[in-house]
Amino acid sequence: MSAIERPGIVLSDTGANAALWDNAFRKTAPDLNLVHDTGARDLSGIRYGMTWKPRAGLYERMPDLAALFVLGAGVERFVADPTIPPQVQIVKMAEPGLTQSMQQYVLWQVLNHHRRFWELEAAQREARWIDQTYPAPWARKVGVMGLGTLGVAVASLLKSFGFDTSGWSRSAKAINGVTVFSGAEQIDAFLDGLEILVCLLPLTAETNGILNADVFRHLAPGAALINVGRGAQLNEADLISALDSGHLSAASLDVFATEPLPETHPFWRHPRIFVTPHLAADVDPESAVLAVQRQIARFEAGQGLEHVADRKRGY
Amino acid sequence: MSAIERPGIVLSDTGANAALWDNAFRKTAPDLNLVHDTGARDLSGIRYGMTWKPRAGLYERMPDLAALFVLGAGVERFVADPTIPPQVQIVKMAEPGLTQSMQQYVLWQVLNHHRRFWELEAAQREARWIDQTYPAPWARKVGVMGLGTLGVAVASLLKSFGFDTSGWSRSAKAINGVTVFSGAEQIDAFLDGLEILVCLLPLTAETNGILNADVFRHLAPGAALINVGRGAQLNEADLISALDSGHLSAASLDVFATEPLPETHPFWRHPRIFVTPHLAADVDPESAVLAVQRQIARFEAGQGLEHVADRKRGY
Repeated sequence: MSAIERPGIVLSDTGANAALWDNAFRKTAPDLNLVHDTGARDLSGIRYGMTWKPRAGLYERMPDLAALFVLGAGVERFVADPTIPPQVQIVKMAEPGLTQSMQQYVLWQVLNHHRRFWELEAAQREARWIDQTYPAPWARKVGVMGLGTLGVAVASLLKSFGFDTSGWSRSAKAINGVTVFSGAEQIDAFLDGLEILVCLLPLTAETNGILNADVFRHLAPGAALINVGRGAQLNEADLISALDSGHLSAASLDVFATEPLPETHPFWRHPRIFVTPHLAADVDPESAVLAVQRQIARFEAGQGLEHVADRKRGY
Repeated sequence: MSAIERPGIVLSDTGANAALWDNAFRKTAPDLNLVHDTGARDLSGIRYGMTWKPRAGLYERMPDLAALFVLGAGVERFVADPTIPPQVQIVKMAEPGLTQSMQQYVLWQVLNHHRRFWELEAAQREARWIDQTYPAPWARKVGVMGLGTLGVAVASLLKSFGFDTSGWSRSAKAINGVTVFSGAEQIDAFLDGLEILVCLLPLTAETNGILNADVFRHLAPGAALINVGRGAQLNEADLISALDSGHLSAASLDVFATEPLPETHPFWRHPRIFVTPHLAADVDPESAVLAVQRQIARFEAGQGLEHVADRKRGY
């Protein structure tokens, strides 16, 4: 099969490492013809695209674009982009590399709060040998807001560690061993008494500012917040108040309203806010290419794509 | 059945919370008669004991002691204690609470090094938003030295997270998916190129000082050490040299030659040594009582006890 006959796919991403993707396609999907978007090249005739930070004018240069694979978690910038023609299907990334790295990050932060390892780091700075006790995992209430591909994987992992795990999402889901709540009418029941709250919600009009004083009030005294959704979901002033009053013990934040987080932002210096620079999860080029290859094979065979974003719903 | 007829078991532990153990026995093993050692009471006729830090003279006060259940990981103080009569079986603790808390601790530290979360904490102190990449877990070589109950559980967990996991122990073991080395003649092959080394060895004459320059030399440049065995296994000067030369990137230490770690010890202030105050793993009274209850039932039925320490071997 010549290069001309292979389905083409455009990589248009100002932050991507081209060599890594070349290698991944060569190794995993030699049946696909990877074309790098230079910002000038004619891309007509190519039906597939991959991007996280697209080059300007991408959609004009791809008049035949049918499916756009988003190389990260969260599609809010794409579903809201009026320059993406309505017939283009925006596909959310569901691949093991992204899922595993998010599971690693959230579990690490949950254990950080469950075992209060961050207190030990503070104690080390003062050369203090302290005593610590902690409950069994089944006596620790952990909740995951947002049950998409990542939220389900995270909730399942926390359950497998024995935590008393619950989840909440817009529509009802079933996850083995996890108590699932859904819809606005069940959010208070979900939140009541949670000791560790993980946010993995998509950013929509409904979730903007959702992590606020009303939510924090329902959590157990001393609860911890882990936000790996989007920065705009957090009411920053409400978080600082809840920490400073002692109602919340600590917060781990990977996402921020403004990124990079400005040097003067108070989050950097708060002793009980743990800032990580939006790196909780990242796609693995090899497993992402495998996922894209499978989707394209489905599409070329006339089957529907999976994980297509709903532009009206916003995710 | 009257209290007199129930098998008695003595709890002799200067650090134990008596109420917690009373509750655990009441809830889990009402068929056993828990007797608290006050240091004076006559304990003759009682065949079972539980301890971590025994009260002075315990073994003289228990002339009928047949099985001593050790309430923590590591029995080196007991197998070396000449006041424990030779007919007393010293039983190592194998119970899910201890195992789970060790798994939590080691996984947390492995992820700390795998994802270099500790670098992010350093960056936060300077309000620096940094870029970070990390390999897929299958491209990260992690090794566990010591494959007792805890070592096997830890190695299996790391494997389930996708790490390229190997193990080493005195005698050969089989662990699903884990490459296992054994004996002195295979230790170099085990160590070569490891990026994260976890020590869960028992303390014996052979393992005293085993974590030294000879071992560190085999590890990959930039490797990290996690010691949850015993402090005496580590050559402290060799560790500092390996860190300061840059050959090792960091070390997480939970155990020390002297505990509590003296306030003036350089480990407290080393920027790439993470000190935790010997709390990696702790028994859970409820699940420990269940384990002890099962062992006593076996013993009373004339079957052998499990997890009995070998005094000659030293663990």
